[in-house]
Amino acid sequence: MTPIALTMGDPAGIGGELSLRAWLATAPCFAVLDDPERLRNLARGLRLDVPVVEIADITAASTVFANALPVLPIRLPMPAQAGRPNGANAPAIIASIERATRLAQAGQAGAVVTNPISKAVLYDAGFRYPGHTEFLAVLTGVPGREVMMLASPLLRVVPITTHISLRRALEMMTTKTIAAAARTTHAALRDDFGITHPRLAVAGLNPHAGEGGALGNEEAEIIVPAISALRAEGLDVSGPWPPDTMFTEAARARYDAAICMYHDQALIPLKTLDMRLGVNVTLGLPIVRTSPDHGTAFDIAGHGVADPTSLIAALHLAAELAARRVSRALPPAR
Amino acid sequence: MTPIALTMGDPAGIGGELSLRAWLATAPCFAVLDDPERLRNLARGLRLDVPVVEIADITAASTVFANALPVLPIRLPMPAQAGRPNGANAPAIIASIERATRLAQAGQAGAVVTNPISKAVLYDAGFRYPGHTEFLAVLTGVPGREVMMLASPLLRVVPITTHISLRRALEMMTTKTIAAAARTTHAALRDDFGITHPRLAVAGLNPHAGEGGALGNEEAEIIVPAISALRAEGLDVSGPWPPDTMFTEAARARYDAAICMYHDQALIPLKTLDMRLGVNVTLGLPIVRTSPDHGTAFDIAGHGVADPTSLIAALHLAAELAARRVSRALPPAR
Repeated sequence: MTPIALTMGDPAGIGGELSLRAWLATAPCFAVLDDPERLRNLARGLRLDVPVVEIADITAASTVFANALPVLPIRLPMPAQAGRPNGANAPAIIASIERATRLAQAGQAGAVVTNPISKAVLYDAGFRYPGHTEFLAVLTGVPGREVMMLASPLLRVVPITTHISLRRALEMMTTKTIAAAARTTHAALRDDFGITHPRLAVAGLNPHAGEGGALGNEEAEIIVPAISALRAEGLDVSGPWPPDTMFTEAARARYDAAICMYHDQALIPLKTLDMRLGVNVTLGLPIVRTSPDHGTAFDIAGHGVADPTSLIAALHLAAELAARRVSRALPPAR
Repeated sequence: MTPIALTMGDPAGIGGELSLRAWLATAPCFAVLDDPERLRNLARGLRLDVPVVEIADITAASTVFANALPVLPIRLPMPAQAGRPNGANAPAIIASIERATRLAQAGQAGAVVTNPISKAVLYDAGFRYPGHTEFLAVLTGVPGREVMMLASPLLRVVPITTHISLRRALEMMTTKTIAAAARTTHAALRDDFGITHPRLAVAGLNPHAGEGGALGNEEAEIIVPAISALRAEGLDVSGPWPPDTMFTEAARARYDAAICMYHDQALIPLKTLDMRLGVNVTLGLPIVRTSPDHGTAFDIAGHGVADPTSLIAALHLAAELAARRVSRALPPAR
């Protein structure tokens, strides 16, 4: 299978140790775009038995991976210090994301998986995006088409807005944004997740989904028209559901993804149910991209206590989605 | 122990069958304020072996309870029909709540547990309260002091506003309402729940608790001043916490109750974790009051499929809280 391109993330964060631990675990073949020397130092410091091998071309990853961690070198201008982000390394962090994306666009990498970055560090270096997701949409030529999904074995959620204040999220919610997020989610569930008949559940905004207008009218004015439009297109869409009861075990069995009206309506149930297995997936891009569902964790970086579960889950999901894209690209078997 | 007074709730809903099933299960001693004839019919129809005995005085409940369900009779003007609420019965529904409350105020009942009502049915009969909670606060002479807690074995949450639109909840949140809810919660945890040193966690409002102002400023302007004021009073209060990560298992271990900024921020994690065991507790009243965390369920009433787990949990929690109030009222043992 085509290797996955894993970015370095902020080298002062937990990304490096997660990459090392993911290689030690059962993960699909990947190459990391990082500084080989800093990874060797990190492995030595944490007493992780991970041989680090530089490769010049990602196609070499498949042969190297069984015995060593393959690294496409991106040298850091300044030595990485755990917990102490350094703006001087920002260009290398950005280059890692750009190069991984080009490899996926060229078909040499099956997917991009990103280690966590710190926006504050990159902003000082001129980075102008709210995060990876929007940057990748611009890099791949589809700005504004990106949709964030959080996926775990128990639940998939798609918030229609992400990193804005709750007040602003209420102003930004429109019939159009709900319908667009639902369409992208439907296509991704069908094409990438292999769900023949995807079922979407749309959340209400207000307590009890507005209780017939007594507790808010966004359901009637904004959400129901979106559901009607989607149904008219033939999509299997239910809702608007009372937000507090739509994530119970019984309710979750009735849909493949929940379209949520704001960040925490989506992320509270996902993280409450299963924080470690949550994976961030960017839908709507021409490439497959996943990431662990946590940040740089500067406070624990270098201590050897960071949990690689989410990164490993991100690698596995990326491989699964990439395999479906490849199989669709191949001519049907005779 | 002093019996619990259980109200009838809407007789077209699932309340009656839940009362019968609660008596069949292991529940603390209670008397139900309901129509004995309708309960007998219901037991017969659902083939539940529950002898129904009328009592004239709730003190008789303790002797009756081991062998029969004690009922303080409140006759319905119209026969109850499952799934078909009838406004003619509204005065009886309200009388059941009023009488249970008087019994608790007089110390003859240890607590009030309420079966679900339908506000729409009661509104037509002139009922002017958003729900039980506000009605009970008025009945017991402390209007505006009531605070809603949802409690399960996994989590306790207190939303600072309840049944209003999300937009309105944002307008209503103030430093004062947060601090008042936290103070009432602290006192209840200490006095009724028996937690010597209660730890409160206050949620942020915005994604990532505002991320230092980048994603909203309610944390800095409204929430942090409340936390500071509470700490100055000596309360153990932490926050504002990022809402999406504060309900994980590890995070929950660090507090006894979460003070939440709106209805669904509190109820999504509670119901997602454990829908059936959630109990609604009204804090800030001179009496103990709990209720199951669900509605009348007119759609399944009379079918014999309603789950009594939440009502039974509400009865047990009411007994536990009532026992602590009694022990506080007694002179200390020599």
